[in-house]
Amino acid sequence: MFSVTVRDHMMVAHSFRGEVFGPAQRLHGATFVVDATFRGESLDEDAILVDIGRASDVLGRVVADLTYRNLDDEAAFAGTNTTTEVLARHVADQLADRIRSGDLGPSADNVGSIVVTLHESHVAWASYERAL
Amino acid sequence: MFSVTVRDHMMVAHSFRGEVFGPAQRLHGATFVVDATFRGESLDEDAILVDIGRASDVLGRVVADLTYRNLDDEAAFAGTNTTTEVLARHVADQLADRIRSGDLGPSADNVGSIVVTLHESHVAWASYERAL
Amino acid sequence: MFSVTVRDHMMVAHSFRGEVFGPAQRLHGATFVVDATFRGESLDEDAILVDIGRASDVLGRVVADLTYRNLDDEAAFAGTNTTTEVLARHVADQLADRIRSGDLGPSADNVGSIVVTLHESHVAWASYERAL
Amino acid sequence: MFSVTVRDHMMVAHSFRGEVFGPAQRLHGATFVVDATFRGESLDEDAILVDIGRASDVLGRVVADLTYRNLDDEAAFAGTNTTTEVLARHVADQLADRIRSGDLGPSADNVGSIVVTLHESHVAWASYERAL
Amino acid sequence: MFSVTVRDHMMVAHSFRGEVFGPAQRLHGATFVVDATFRGESLDEDAILVDIGRASDVLGRVVADLTYRNLDDEAAFAGTNTTTEVLARHVADQLADRIRSGDLGPSADNVGSIVVTLHESHVAWASYERAL
Amino acid sequence: MFSVTVRDHMMVAHSFRGEVFGPAQRLHGATFVVDATFRGESLDEDAILVDIGRASDVLGRVVADLTYRNLDDEAAFAGTNTTTEVLARHVADQLADRIRSGDLGPSADNVGSIVVTLHESHVAWASYERAL
Repeated sequence: MFSVTVRDHMMVAHSFRGEVFGPAQRLHGATFVVDATFRGESLDEDAILVDIGRASDVLGRVVADLTYRNLDDEAAFAGTNTTTEVLARHVADQLADRIRSGDLGPSADNVGSIVVTLHESHVAWASYERAL
Repeated sequence: MFSVTVRDHMMVAHSFRGEVFGPAQRLHGATFVVDATFRGESLDEDAILVDIGRASDVLGRVVADLTYRNLDDEAAFAGTNTTTEVLARHVADQLADRIRSGDLGPSADNVGSIVVTLHESHVAWASYERAL
Repeated sequence: MFSVTVRDHMMVAHSFRGEVFGPAQRLHGATFVVDATFRGESLDEDAILVDIGRASDVLGRVVADLTYRNLDDEAAFAGTNTTTEVLARHVADQLADRIRSGDLGPSADNVGSIVVTLHESHVAWASYERAL
Repeated sequence: MFSVTVRDHMMVAHSFRGEVFGPAQRLHGATFVVDATFRGESLDEDAILVDIGRASDVLGRVVADLTYRNLDDEAAFAGTNTTTEVLARHVADQLADRIRSGDLGPSADNVGSIVVTLHESHVAWASYERAL
Repeated sequence: MFSVTVRDHMMVAHSFRGEVFGPAQRLHGATFVVDATFRGESLDEDAILVDIGRASDVLGRVVADLTYRNLDDEAAFAGTNTTTEVLARHVADQLADRIRSGDLGPSADNVGSIVVTLHESHVAWASYERAL
Repeated sequence: MFSVTVRDHMMVAHSFRGEVFGPAQRLHGATFVVDATFRGESLDEDAILVDIGRASDVLGRVVADLTYRNLDDEAAFAGTNTTTEVLARHVADQLADRIRSGDLGPSADNVGSIVVTLHESHVAWASYERAL
């Protein structure tokens, strides 16, 4: 099993609803360092699973849709807390859509699953893994 | 599949029995940077797998029981070498006990497995994964 | 010359005024991983420059005053952009006040200067250094 | 499930054939920080999965065969691009050969699979996982 | 004293002349993770020392001139070994030229010195510091 | 001004005397990740400040004298606490002795000062800087 991972980051504001969040119910923000991992059983004729440059570009476009925003105002997240878990799933789903649209090129046919990890600090991170 | 990881550390002394350990048979010590990962298929109504603050507190209590100690004198490890592998399993087992006792709250019902990674230096680390 | 550094982090929301900031003029946020360095020429009778535990506590209290907040609403920053540079200076000044108040204990008499570094992502950070 | 990981690095030159690689078709090079992970269900009587010192030595010998070389001239890679994916598989295969030859000692009988991760920069890495 | 640092990377091939280099006399390569630090005593009216986005762009252009190249063939380095020290100085000098040309904008008038650090692996790096 | 840094690590046991240390008065231990920085104004005819391979070897010999030991039993530290500050100074002094003995070779004549940083965890470290 092969995997390829690329890293980017995004900076967002948001707040949480629910007593469990304590002071994080206030409007605050986070830098999320975002790792996108693509997994597959075989390589293409160029000996790559995915083109790392192209994977970086696709991840860059996904995080650009979120960065420098207040997620409390984004329709995509209406009615849900934008926890690190939820954002990891959102980024993974967006990447899956783009792979299916061909943004990663034909080599991406070998990608069977993706994992997205969002680091919210040097001491906490969350991931979401899904099939393609 | 979601996962959430929190990081802490502990500083211990110990020695090893067995020729395989060479100079590490002498009393020495280590800082272990400890990553505790909680895995589960679904989120609760607050959109979290586990409360990161609460997970940090629970991990902090587990490592507090070990830190600033000579593990050669701890009854919990009598008759076994306190290798990085053994300590990773010990921390994982302690976390599992605390989750079952409710220390992580009701959302932790969604946690199906945990992984504990102990970094003993910038060039070596070990993990233990177990079901809950 | 000795130095001791401790690390913590804070998660804030803010926005910037000025065309130079482009999309960062929108309300967004950041995790700042905060490194506080204490510098001095000599150690006390316990052979420490500062007590690392006490230094961590003091830094923790300084970042607690900022974390989970929208800095646009904080009186301390009225009329200025809360850039990484400004926040590094703010944290350094707060630490200096607390050292002068004795929060770091008598050993801190040997501290001649402090440096505060705020990491806003894995690819950008800023520092402020000042005498005590 | 236990795992043990050791880290080393190698510095190589190479070029790629194929339009997908753009400017990387030119002769260039990379430092690969190499993580070798050994996985197994149980520990030996010394309470280790593998001897970390011995694992470091074996990994060191594998990367020594590649480092300070132009991979375009190496017979082992004739006819294939030496992408990060291919090099991760090569290192994993070499480690598997050495484990089967007994280089990791008898405790390695418990190793069921290995994972090799090659970090080509702070923002991109690739892995290969295989059974033993 | 303020400082702002941005990070990028470049991947190059090269070889060294001189017995001191041992096997590194062979053609090989490296990823250099490049940190560019800008230092100055005061901030501009926007409360920045340099625009982090603009600093990243300038650093990106400097490393783009070197990456995916065999430095043995570059006229800029004829007659000198392209050691990590030499490359750090080269990047620093290129950044200084661009700052003086106005690429960092008017706020960069406050920059008094720059430091460039090139990480050649996880266990070795070199820096060059110069006045502007 | 040039600098070159190499990294290694050591694992030691020790205890501290003095109420300020709280639970660290008990016998415990630490992994110290050790960064040794060599600084100088000019390069030699090979275009290096120090030979990175040789610098790594010298640092390796210095940390080998300390690792896998209980520092409470070492004559070199009789009557003093082996705090991170003290150990950083000890490693720096040992390196200075070895440089003066010629262990780094003639190029080291350009080294004017050294800095040693000991990381005791992911959230705390200490340094000692001295002239040569």
